[in-house]
Amino acid sequence: MRQYKILLIIADGLGDRPTRELNGRTPLGAADKPNLRELIRSSVGGLMDPIAPGVRAGSDTSHLAIFGLDPFKYYRGRGAFEAIGAGAVLEPGDVAFRGNFATVEGDLTVIDRRAGRKIEEADDLVRELNEKVGEIDGVKAMFYHGTEHRVAVVLRGQGLSDKVSDTDPHEVNRRVLESRPLDGTKEAERTAEVLNKLTRRVYEVLSQSELNKLRVSKGLPPANVILLRGASIFEGLPKFKDYTGLNAGAVSATALIKGICKQLGMDVITPPGATGGVDSDLNAKADAAAKTLEEKDFVFVHVKGTDAASHDGNARAKVDVIERIDRMIGRILDRVGSELVIAFTGDHTTPVEVREHTSDPVPFMLYLPFQANFDGLSDFNEREVKKGSLRIRGLDVTNLLLGYSNRAEKYGA
Amino acid sequence: MRQYKILLIIADGLGDRPTRELNGRTPLGAADKPNLRELIRSSVGGLMDPIAPGVRAGSDTSHLAIFGLDPFKYYRGRGAFEAIGAGAVLEPGDVAFRGNFATVEGDLTVIDRRAGRKIEEADDLVRELNEKVGEIDGVKAMFYHGTEHRVAVVLRGQGLSDKVSDTDPHEVNRRVLESRPLDGTKEAERTAEVLNKLTRRVYEVLSQSELNKLRVSKGLPPANVILLRGASIFEGLPKFKDYTGLNAGAVSATALIKGICKQLGMDVITPPGATGGVDSDLNAKADAAAKTLEEKDFVFVHVKGTDAASHDGNARAKVDVIERIDRMIGRILDRVGSELVIAFTGDHTTPVEVREHTSDPVPFMLYLPFQANFDGLSDFNEREVKKGSLRIRGLDVTNLLLGYSNRAEKYGA
Repeated sequence: MRQYKILLIIADGLGDRPTRELNGRTPLGAADKPNLRELIRSSVGGLMDPIAPGVRAGSDTSHLAIFGLDPFKYYRGRGAFEAIGAGAVLEPGDVAFRGNFATVEGDLTVIDRRAGRKIEEADDLVRELNEKVGEIDGVKAMFYHGTEHRVAVVLRGQGLSDKVSDTDPHEVNRRVLESRPLDGTKEAERTAEVLNKLTRRVYEVLSQSELNKLRVSKGLPPANVILLRGASIFEGLPKFKDYTGLNAGAVSATALIKGICKQLGMDVITPPGATGGVDSDLNAKADAAAKTLEEKDFVFVHVKGTDAASHDGNARAKVDVIERIDRMIGRILDRVGSELVIAFTGDHTTPVEVREHTSDPVPFMLYLPFQANFDGLSDFNEREVKKGSLRIRGLDVTNLLLGYSNRAEKYGA
Repeated sequence: MRQYKILLIIADGLGDRPTRELNGRTPLGAADKPNLRELIRSSVGGLMDPIAPGVRAGSDTSHLAIFGLDPFKYYRGRGAFEAIGAGAVLEPGDVAFRGNFATVEGDLTVIDRRAGRKIEEADDLVRELNEKVGEIDGVKAMFYHGTEHRVAVVLRGQGLSDKVSDTDPHEVNRRVLESRPLDGTKEAERTAEVLNKLTRRVYEVLSQSELNKLRVSKGLPPANVILLRGASIFEGLPKFKDYTGLNAGAVSATALIKGICKQLGMDVITPPGATGGVDSDLNAKADAAAKTLEEKDFVFVHVKGTDAASHDGNARAKVDVIERIDRMIGRILDRVGSELVIAFTGDHTTPVEVREHTSDPVPFMLYLPFQANFDGLSDFNEREVKKGSLRIRGLDVTNLLLGYSNRAEKYGA
């Protein structure tokens, strides 16, 4: 059997509901999509529940499932995935925390749990911490800036545990908490001790930082401590190549998605101009995807703009991003031809009228180069794909791609 | 996101097959349902396998699944659920048995395994046992009358086991069996010992009962012992509120369903006139449901008449019950409005031409107050709903209700 290359395109938050501003059509239904309309004629289609019917998926859990890893097994704790999203590349045994820059007085009484929330100096403060905090009792502490006041902290060293309590008191006018071990193990005791030393060391570095002195002189609250919560140990993720046999490349500009792809061992490409927003240069992504398809068996392209438009409640912007995705696909096929297997779907539904992830299933199409119009679909949108033959879960996608590209091992004899 | 209240209506044994008496229509297809036809225009619909395709569900296993509890994990042994259906409220560690009133001679040789089957005095005999048997070796024995000769017996106390053999010899002209421990544990030994003392104590109480003396004087076989079988230990069920966050009320007149709802911690309401039969006062149920919806997030209404009509093979009666359910739904909505999420389905299929539960999937509809006619359905019946987008299992229902009522926590980021 001829083995085809595989192109997987995920438009974040693609799924939607009938939308008043679009006269009852969904953004996908309203968008002009000549390339997708052409591909759908050789596709099977249907609806996909990213996790399971009724489950409101996040982008992290959904991408794990679509890449073939059951999130109920592999998604252990928010902390590790927050750190991955903030740029950390984790190793098994790392303990990750979600954190806030906060403002405290000299006795570590919290005055502002978010140090004013908008902290322009956050990237520089994180850099200073990574330079000056160093090791504590043989444990390396690493700091990653997320958005606004958010910081992920990762501890790396022997014998750590995530069974430790938060240092975040979760309200103001209370002192930063001492972390305590939550079970009787030596590892938890050691980790809590490291964490308490870390808090004092972070306070020393930050309260002496020139950046904070400048903030105070401007009348801004200094970001002079980090409050930690949600310890989670990272147990590692299997490598995509190991469980699929596929050499994989990922084209994405979104930190969380890039982080997950890196952890799975994919080569991650962020071409210049790709921003992870509605203004992203999708031509640049098309070119990067086409080039990567020359070298790899499997190329994943992630587009964030659909979700960004949805969270803004901007139906027209979502239609526009979908139309640009259609042209991106056309541009890829102009370069590489159409002798490949292509899946196009979303990672979850974010209706523009809701502005939040919902649990609705997501439209899914699978273009097959050898397939006559078996499902008889005439367009790719939420209503039309329901007529197709597929009713799948996210966890089925990687198997479908391997199966239809003639790359699946036979299960049995 | 606005959180909607939830109404779940289950018509027991609703699903059916094309029926000769109805000119090839199903009872649901033949029934006049103006309210459901109105609701279906804002619904998603499809077919539901209560457990899994091909599995013939009972009402107990199916309701567990629909309430979000996997029966393969939580349905441990018939005995416990028989006791629940007979009115017991079980505690973890209780050991429950299915039992028969039977007739024995003085040396405990069984003459009639069912003591004539129809035992008018059964409720009074059970009351007498609950008053007079008392504790045995610190173990409390509780008796619950089911139907006809059937009695559930529950043992409550420290250190009990369900690894004990039956006392029911399963044929006449044999003596009541001594229960034996089925494994080497002290708990099994103790339980078998208690059970053997219990059998003799039950015989003493029943053979001296004035009610039995009266039966003998009428030429009826005395119900002078209880034969026990199918020991099962109750391991407890999670509380619905704990795993869904929902304050729940249940409107039902059927012992087994009421029992399950009570074990899940729901408030159970049986309005006067609700009988659990084809003659049940569904207006009274409508009023109870509407009132409960004012106080609760989630109201479950169970109607047994559809199943009762099916077991009788009475297609016209089933059509009539369905039409009265339709009016019940209309009456609820007249009271509470239509700004809520409503699921209507059955717990299994009981075709009137089969008169037994079958494994066919069940029609399912989910009314969404914010949903235009996305699935394009024009009626609610087995044939039409197949055009809808859902193909689910019972275990998905609670997730779907949480998801579409905007009450699901996001899984991931």
